[in-house]
Amino acid sequence: MLFFTQCFGAVLDLIHLRFQHYKAKRVFSAAGQLVCVVNPTHSLKYAPTRCAAAQTSMEQGILPPCHHHEAVHDPQLVPCTCPLFSCPWEGHLEVVVSHLRQTHRINILQGAEIVFLATDMHLPAPTDWIIMHSCLGHQFLLVLRKQEKYEGHPQFFATMMLIGTPTQADNFTYRLELNRNQRRLKWEATPRSVLECVDSVISDGDCLVLNTSLAQLFSDNGSLAIGIAITTSKVHNAEAEM
Amino acid sequence: MLFFTQCFGAVLDLIHLRFQHYKAKRVFSAAGQLVCVVNPTHSLKYAPTRCAAAQTSMEQGILPPCHHHEAVHDPQLVPCTCPLFSCPWEGHLEVVVSHLRQTHRINILQGAEIVFLATDMHLPAPTDWIIMHSCLGHQFLLVLRKQEKYEGHPQFFATMMLIGTPTQADNFTYRLELNRNQRRLKWEATPRSVLECVDSVISDGDCLVLNTSLAQLFSDNGSLAIGIAITTSKVHNAEAEM
Repeated sequence: MLFFTQCFGAVLDLIHLRFQHYKAKRVFSAAGQLVCVVNPTHSLKYAPTRCAAAQTSMEQGILPPCHHHEAVHDPQLVPCTCPLFSCPWEGHLEVVVSHLRQTHRINILQGAEIVFLATDMHLPAPTDWIIMHSCLGHQFLLVLRKQEKYEGHPQFFATMMLIGTPTQADNFTYRLELNRNQRRLKWEATPRSVLECVDSVISDGDCLVLNTSLAQLFSDNGSLAIGIAITTSKVHNAEAEM
Repeated sequence: MLFFTQCFGAVLDLIHLRFQHYKAKRVFSAAGQLVCVVNPTHSLKYAPTRCAAAQTSMEQGILPPCHHHEAVHDPQLVPCTCPLFSCPWEGHLEVVVSHLRQTHRINILQGAEIVFLATDMHLPAPTDWIIMHSCLGHQFLLVLRKQEKYEGHPQFFATMMLIGTPTQADNFTYRLELNRNQRRLKWEATPRSVLECVDSVISDGDCLVLNTSLAQLFSDNGSLAIGIAITTSKVHNAEAEM
C-alpha cells in the first residue's frame, strides 16, 4: 500500500512537472526554446562580506585570498569563484563549472534561448534558483535570488554571470524577459564575471529587481518563467542603433 | 549688476536645458523622437485612502462619491479622476485634461514616441513627474512617482494611464524604456484608466518599479530619460507571437 502511494505520488509529480513545462512553453511560444524547471536551494548561511576583499582587489587588478578565511591559501587559487554565498569553496576559474555540477548539482543547458522556470517562489528568503547556460562557446550562470535587503520585504534579484574573466564578459549581452498576463518586463545588460561575485552585484542592485507584488503578477501557480537570451555585444549595439 | 547676474543665470539655465535635451536625444537616437524635460512637483499631502471608495465601487461597476469628502456630491461627477494625490478635485472625465493643463500646468505632447526626461531625481519623496501624451486619438498621462513604500527606502514608480474608461484602455499597450550605460529595461503593459486611480496602481506595484540604485544607474547627472511608446493592443499581440 505504501509502495502504491509512493508510486502514485511520483506519477503525480511527473504530471505536474510536465504541466509546468507545457505552460512555460506556451508563455514563451517561440519554437525550439528549451524549458528548464529549476528547483530552489535554500541558502543556509548568509555571508555578505565574503567577497569584500576580493571586490577591492578586483578593482586594483590583483586577486588576493579572502582575508576572512582562516587557512593559508595557494596564491594560484582564485577566491570567491563559487557564486553561491553559502559555499566557502575556492579554486581555479577552469574548475568552477565542474564544482557547480558536482558539488551543487547545478544543471547545464545548451541553446541560444532558454526558459528558466523557477518553482516555489513563495519559499522564504534567502533562497537561490540557479542554472548554468552553455552558449556561444562559454558557460554562463543564471542566479535568481530571493533576499530581504530591507527586513520584512523580500525582493527577487536575477542576474547572469560569465564563468570567465571580466574582459571576456564584456563581449556579451544577456537578456532576461518576463511575459505574462499582458505585461512584459525585459532587462538587458553586459554579464558580470563570476570573479566579481554575485553577492556584490545583487547588493549594488545592478540586475533585474522584482518586488514581491511584481513577481506575483508574473508568476503562474507559484512558478516564475524567465526567458533568457545571450548575444555578442556587437549584435546588441547594432540593435540599440536601430 | 543684479540685472546682469539674473540674465546670465537665465542664459546658463537655457544652455543646461539645451544640453539635457541633447543628451536625451543622443540616448534615444531614433530620429523624430520628441524630448520633453519634466520638472518635479513635490506632493504636499499624502492621501492613500483617497481612492479606496472609488476603487471598491469600480469593481462593482458603480461610481459613488468619495466618502471622505465632506461635501455632498453631484452624482453626475466622477470622483478621483484627478490622478494627483494631493488634489481633491473631482469632475467629469471629459474635463480632466483641461483641469490638468490649467490647474496643474501639465504639458501635453503629441507623437507616437516621446522621451520623458525627469529632472532632479534626488529630491525627497513624495515627488511626482507628470506629462500628458496625446496619441492615437486619445490622451494618456505618464506619472513617475518617488515614494517611500517602506520607510527610509524611496522607490520610483512609473505608469501610464488613459484619460478614458477601462474598456477604452484595454485597446492599448504602452512601453516605457530606460537605456543607458549598456543596460536596458523595458516595461510593457495595458494602460489603466484614470478612473482606477494612480495611487492604487502604484500601491499594487503593477507598474515599472525602480530601486534607488537602479534609478541612479539609468540617470545621467540627476535626470532620468524614459522612452515612451503607445500602440494599439493588436500590434502588441502580433509582436508577442513573433
